[in-house]
Parts: sequence; C-alpha cells; structure tokens
Amino acid sequence: MEKCPRIELSENGPEFSRLVAGVWKWGEWGHNFSPVQVSELIKDSVEAGITTFDHADIYGDYTDEALFGKAFELTGFNRDDIELVSKCGIKMVSPNRPDHSIKSYDYSEGHIVKSVERSLQNLKTDYLDLLLLHRPSPLMDPHIIAGAFNKLKHEGKVINFGVSNFTPSQFSMLNSVFPLVTNQVQISPLHLDCLTDGTLDQCIEKKIKPMAWSPLGSSGMFSEDLSDPRTARVKDRITKIAEKYKVGIDVIILAWHLKHPSGILPVLGTGKGSRLRNALKAFQIDLSNEEWFDVYSASLGQDIP
Amino acid sequence: MEKCPRIELSENGPEFSRLVAGVWKWGEWGHNFSPVQVSELIKDSVEAGITTFDHADIYGDYTDEALFGKAFELTGFNRDDIELVSKCGIKMVSPNRPDHSIKSYDYSEGHIVKSVERSLQNLKTDYLDLLLLHRPSPLMDPHIIAGAFNKLKHEGKVINFGVSNFTPSQFSMLNSVFPLVTNQVQISPLHLDCLTDGTLDQCIEKKIKPMAWSPLGSSGMFSEDLSDPRTARVKDRITKIAEKYKVGIDVIILAWHLKHPSGILPVLGTGKGSRLRNALKAFQIDLSNEEWFDVYSASLGQDIP
Amino acid sequence: MEKCPRIELSENGPEFSRLVAGVWKWGEWGHNFSPVQVSELIKDSVEAGITTFDHADIYGDYTDEALFGKAFELTGFNRDDIELVSKCGIKMVSPNRPDHSIKSYDYSEGHIVKSVERSLQNLKTDYLDLLLLHRPSPLMDPHIIAGAFNKLKHEGKVINFGVSNFTPSQFSMLNSVFPLVTNQVQISPLHLDCLTDGTLDQCIEKKIKPMAWSPLGSSGMFSEDLSDPRTARVKDRITKIAEKYKVGIDVIILAWHLKHPSGILPVLGTGKGSRLRNALKAFQIDLSNEEWFDVYSASLGQDIP
Repeated sequence: MEKCPRIELSENGPEFSRLVAGVWKWGEWGHNFSPVQVSELIKDSVEAGITTFDHADIYGDYTDEALFGKAFELTGFNRDDIELVSKCGIKMVSPNRPDHSIKSYDYSEGHIVKSVERSLQNLKTDYLDLLLLHRPSPLMDPHIIAGAFNKLKHEGKVINFGVSNFTPSQFSMLNSVFPLVTNQVQISPLHLDCLTDGTLDQCIEKKIKPMAWSPLGSSGMFSEDLSDPRTARVKDRITKIAEKYKVGIDVIILAWHLKHPSGILPVLGTGKGSRLRNALKAFQIDLSNEEWFDVYSASLGQDIP
Repeated sequence: MEKCPRIELSENGPEFSRLVAGVWKWGEWGHNFSPVQVSELIKDSVEAGITTFDHADIYGDYTDEALFGKAFELTGFNRDDIELVSKCGIKMVSPNRPDHSIKSYDYSEGHIVKSVERSLQNLKTDYLDLLLLHRPSPLMDPHIIAGAFNKLKHEGKVINFGVSNFTPSQFSMLNSVFPLVTNQVQISPLHLDCLTDGTLDQCIEKKIKPMAWSPLGSSGMFSEDLSDPRTARVKDRITKIAEKYKVGIDVIILAWHLKHPSGILPVLGTGKGSRLRNALKAFQIDLSNEEWFDVYSASLGQDIP
Repeated sequence: MEKCPRIELSENGPEFSRLVAGVWKWGEWGHNFSPVQVSELIKDSVEAGITTFDHADIYGDYTDEALFGKAFELTGFNRDDIELVSKCGIKMVSPNRPDHSIKSYDYSEGHIVKSVERSLQNLKTDYLDLLLLHRPSPLMDPHIIAGAFNKLKHEGKVINFGVSNFTPSQFSMLNSVFPLVTNQVQISPLHLDCLTDGTLDQCIEKKIKPMAWSPLGSSGMFSEDLSDPRTARVKDRITKIAEKYKVGIDVIILAWHLKHPSGILPVLGTGKGSRLRNALKAFQIDLSNEEWFDVYSASLGQDIP
C-alpha cells in the first residue's frame, strides 16, 4: 500500500504526515472507544503513514489524552514513530475541572506550562511535537506566551509551537515575538472564509503550512438531511465529481484541499481505520481547475466574479 | 492617598498618568463649568496623580481649550506638572466657525499647523505633549501630515504625535512615514471591536499604548433605562463583581480595561473630582480571568467559542 | 489643447497618461465599433494625451484585443506612442472558448504565458506595458505566478506587472515575491470601499498608484432612473458642484478622483472621442475639501463622524 506523503510545516520543521488523525471524537465526545480499540486505530493509522495525531487538553472533557496514552502503550510503537500535537488555553466548565465556573481562556505562563505537563503525563510521553494555542484570547500577552514557549522548548517538553483559529493580525502579533509553524483553522467546501480573509494568504507569505479542522465540513454532507440548500448544492457537485473518479465524496473533498497552494494538512475526524486508509486515494486525484471551482462556486451560490 | 500610576506610551515617551482626564464635557457640551470650577477639577485631578488632560480643538464648539487655559492659570501649577493632549482635523459646522458650511476633515499642512497654534494660544501654553489626528480622513496624505508634524516638532510646539479612531491599515500607512505613539479608540465592555479587529494587536506589536475613549461605555450602564438587553446583561455581571469587591461599577469597568495586556489608558469623562479620586481604586483590583470573561461573554451574548 | 498629464505608477515605472482609455465596451460588449471607428477613437484619445489603453483578454468575448490590433494599424501611430495594459486569468464560458465548461480562474504558468502570447498576437504588438491578474483566485500560488512573470519579463513580452481587485492581504502575498506596480480596483462616489478597507492605504504605503475601473459609478448617475436614493443624493450634490464650475458631472467625478492623495488613474469607459477630450477639464478643477466631503457624505447617507 502507498503511504501517506509527508510535509514540512515550516522551513525549520516539524515534518508531519500530510493527513493528520484527529482524536477528538475517539473518547467521551464520540465513539467512547476502549484503549484496545484506540490502539487498533493507531496501528491502522500508522500503517497508512498517517503518523501525526491531533489532540487537545479538553477533548473528551479532559480525558482523551489519557485514553490515547494507554492505547499507545498497547501498540508497541516507539515514541518517534509518531508525532503528537496538542492544544491548551481553553478552560471549559466540566465535571473534571470543578474549579472552572465559566468558560474562559487562560494564556498565563503558569497555565500554559501546567497544561502541557498534564498533557505529557496523560499521553505518557516526554514531549509534544507541536503545541497550539487553541483559540485566540482577547487577553493574550505575546511576551508572556513567548516566555512560556521558551521555557517549554528549553526543557524539551515541546519542540514546535503554533496557533489555532487566529486572525492574521493575531498571528502577526505573536509571530513577531516567537516563530509559529502553523495556524490550524476551519476550512472545507462549506467554510471558505480562510481562503479570502487573509488567513491562507498569510500562511503562504510567511512560509508555513495551515492545518484544516473539520475538512469535510462537519457532518453536513454526510447526513441524509439536505434541507440546507447550500449543503445540497455542494454535495451534488462533489457527488458528480466522485462518480467520475469512482471514489467516495470524502476523497474528493480531501483532493479539493490538497489542490490549494498553501499546502493544507487536513485533520481527519474519523474513528474508522478503513476510512483513514481510504483517504489516501485523495493523493491519486488531481482535480482540474474547473472541478475545483465547480465546488467553490456551488458553495458561493453563484459564479465567481 | 495613593497616586495614579504612570506609563510610557512608547519606547521614546511620552510618560502619562495611566488614567487620563477627558475635558470634553466640562464646557459647553456638558457641565458649563466656570474657570474657577475647572481649576478645582484640575487640582483634584493632579492631586490624585491624574496629570494628563485630553482635549480637542472642537470640544465645547471650539471653546473648551480656552476655558481650560484660563482655569489652569488659577491653579498656580507649573506647565510641567501636567501633560496636555489635543486633537485636530475635524472641521465642524459651528457658530464659532462660520466659514464651515459642512462637516469635513482637513489634514493639509496649513490646517494642522494653524489648529495647533490656536490650541496653544487657547490653552496658554508653549507646547502640546501629544497631538492626535482626531479621525482618519479618506483624503489624508501621510507625507503632507509628516511634513506638518516635523515642522511642529522642530518648532517645539508638539512633542509627540498619534492618531485616534484609525484602522490598522490607516495606522500602518502613517506610521511608516512618521512614528506614532498611540491610537485613541473606543473601548468598553459594550464596545469590543478593537479587541478582535486587529487594533489592539497592532498596538502590542508596534509597542505603543492605546488610549480608550468612553471607557465606561457612554452612559448606557449608568442610566435607569436598561431596555437594551445587552446593556442589561453586562451591567448585571459587573454589578455582581462590584458587590464582591465593594466598589462602584465604574471601578470594575476600569479594572477590566487595566487587565488588558496592551496597557490601555482610559480617558475619564467625569466632571467630578470625587469620581476621579474614586477611579484610583481600580488599581487595587486584580480581576480574575474568569471575572474578565464573565463581562466579555455577557457582552457577546454567548459563551466564547 | 492641453494634453493629459502623465504619472509614474511606481518608482520603477511605467509612466502612463493619468487618464486611461478603457476598451471593454468598444466591441461586442457595447458599441460594436468597426476597426475604422476604433482607429478614430484611438486618434482622438492620443491627441488628447490619453495614450494608455486598458484591455483584457476576455473583453468582447475574447475579441476586443484583435479589433484594437487592426484599428491601431490604421492609425499610423508607432507602438511607443501608446501604452498597452491587458489582463489574464479569468476563463469565461464563451462560444469563442468552447473548452471552458464553467467560469474559473487559471494562474498556472502555462495559462498566464499563453494568454499573454495570444494578447500580443491579437494586439499585433511585441510587448505589453503592463499585465494585470484580472481577479484574485483562491488557488493562486505566488511562486508559480512569479515564475510566469519572470519568464515574460525576460523574454521582453511584458514590461510591468500588477493586479486587479486584490485585497490588501492578497496584494501583500504576491508583492512579497514579485514587485507589483498597481492594483486596479473599483472606485467611484458610489463605491467607497477601497477608500477605507485598506486598499488605497496600502497603495500609498507601498508607493504604487491605483487604477480605478468604473470611476463614474457605472451608468447609475447618467441614467434617467434615480429610484435608488443613494444615487439620487450623490447626483444631486455633484450636479450642484458641476453647475458652479460650469462643467458636466463626469468632469466633477473625475476631479473627485484626482483629489485623492493615492494618485488614482481613472479608466474611462466611454466610446466617444469628445468625452475623452472633455474629461481633461478635470485637471483644471481643484475641488475644495468641503466639496469633496459633500459628495462623500451624500454617498454615506450621513455626516462623517
């Protein structure tokens, strides 16, 4: 079997698998997998060359990292067979965090460091390949954040740093103090904002690769309910293209991402090993310009100008 | 009594009191104070360490600067006991400017220089510590403006220069030609735009401090009329926090500003010396992250994402 | 007769006539002029000093460039008596391009080079003075585009390069790889976005001159139908100013453009030589600040803040 290609996020690394396995639905927020089940998924993923796993402290109400940590031990893999991404900064109201009375963000040095140390403990590892600030906070101080990043880097606890859901001005503010290697944002045929609001322009200009969460557009196009006319239009076009290439619509959507010149790394949310393997077909499909714009225009609801 | 702390607006100054006394309602547009009354307010303010006064040529229909000038003579203070900010560029329709037939902006060298010279004459002083362009004009030419600034600086008439109500791109355009030390913008729990539209990100990245006008959110939260649901929500949260700390809601709102990492200088619009003194309590209050976001989320009308 | 003034688009050229003759309505999309008629228009234009002609591959359903090429031969002018601008990148559905099944953009090196070579052939010339990317594409890769530009420049086929309808972040992305000399955008008293969204700020900061398409605001103000209240308001103000200066409203609108400090080059869409000559009157009119803002405020529908 062909393996998933690899890609450098920035000129100074890290190197990730081009497709990333997103963990957020594997635990309490979705499939409620056992450690054994997760270990099978990890094996399927790594065998497909999808070696990069996307976590956040909060996934599964603060429990997914520990689930993954137990499961990874069962795989017998070495730590450097995979790359681990995690995130910090959101304080959710959760039974597992009884001291949180409302949802807030916290980018104090103390919280960033403590959150990472807890992620390492739960993941049973010594380091993260990449730490992301999960959401931009109106209260974030880039100098304090850079202090935390430098400490974590110096101690070997985190190798690379990035952000998620940042606007271009927020990215620029932090990047002017500490070099960031990615901005993980929402992109899909149903979420086009980042293609025109400057987010991907900035990634290209700064020579970093974006990661895309919910690259398939949440579950919209995969449900029976097509009452939203935009979803119906887009699914119709993608289905026609999928029939031409004899693949599923998920493969066409991934090929649509791969055609973007910014070098998007789609984060796949699936909990099925077969779907992860199947996703590799996207690398065999080179959509034409017209096919790409057919999907884009369907999403706009009108021809491009 | 504790004095108001001081803060540098940029690496090259000026140093201002962290809270600024705004003069705009002291004259014809509000309280109609006499020179003696204004002199008492100035004394109260300076005794509290609030030594920076925020003017504009147009305040009081072009009369507040002269009122202040007379009042300041009565205080017996020296010029360097205080810092004076003024603004130029708006041409209002006013009985005091019969040649203005419609409202317009004028950033010609002639108008900027003449406006400053008139401000100096009215304020009975030799120099402004800071001159602000009051509103961005679609017709402003940064090279012409820089010419006027250089002339005023060379002649010792203005020490520092900044802008007010500028977007990031407008700021960048002028700052690329002449170094600016602040952007005075509208910020309050009811006016959050600058926290996410790049304005405060730019201040942090460029290492300058923003000033906030109407920091208390105009009179909305201080009136009996709470028919606007957003105002009612925000006031409710702030009131609960104020009860906890045993201070007025104005103090909590100022503490909310002070917690922002950009180093906001709130411009207080009050005409009461007791309120100016009372505002200093904000420096004793260190809001928790959760308290800050409680106010923020109430203003958004929903949890942060 | 006074000739149209000339202006440098960037510090490294090119030098164009300040008013530009737009060709798009001369052929199948408008007047359906014969080559002889176009040759007369070119002569009228050049005699007025309007020596720069704005084309695009697609104008007239891909036929206007050839029409102009034939007409220019009839004038007896030399190639260096005029400057030629063309555009590429839009693939329209057209009987003249049967291989286009939907509207799309194409900024591959192959398409850019081929489009230019076809423009040169149709225009019967060896070079374009300026090539513009017609519309920003979400799929454009600045490095591929720069490759095509360098090839065309090296071969002498295009002297200068720019863009059209680009946002500031799109301009910045491409300009960081290849120096651009203009951004041709829609500006008129009825289309004010570029005056405040950062587009013209960026032109000033980067020291390049913008070109304005539809500078007269499409046909709105020149039709009998004034049912749109904004159009009616703006036309009313402009008409009063036109009466004062004893010129047509088109001349006042052009003077309104010329007053902007970015150095706008209006692209005139007229098909009448008399109108081109008449437009030169705009250079004799120096609108006052108040007149300029009178038009601007009428378009806003309220006083400036």
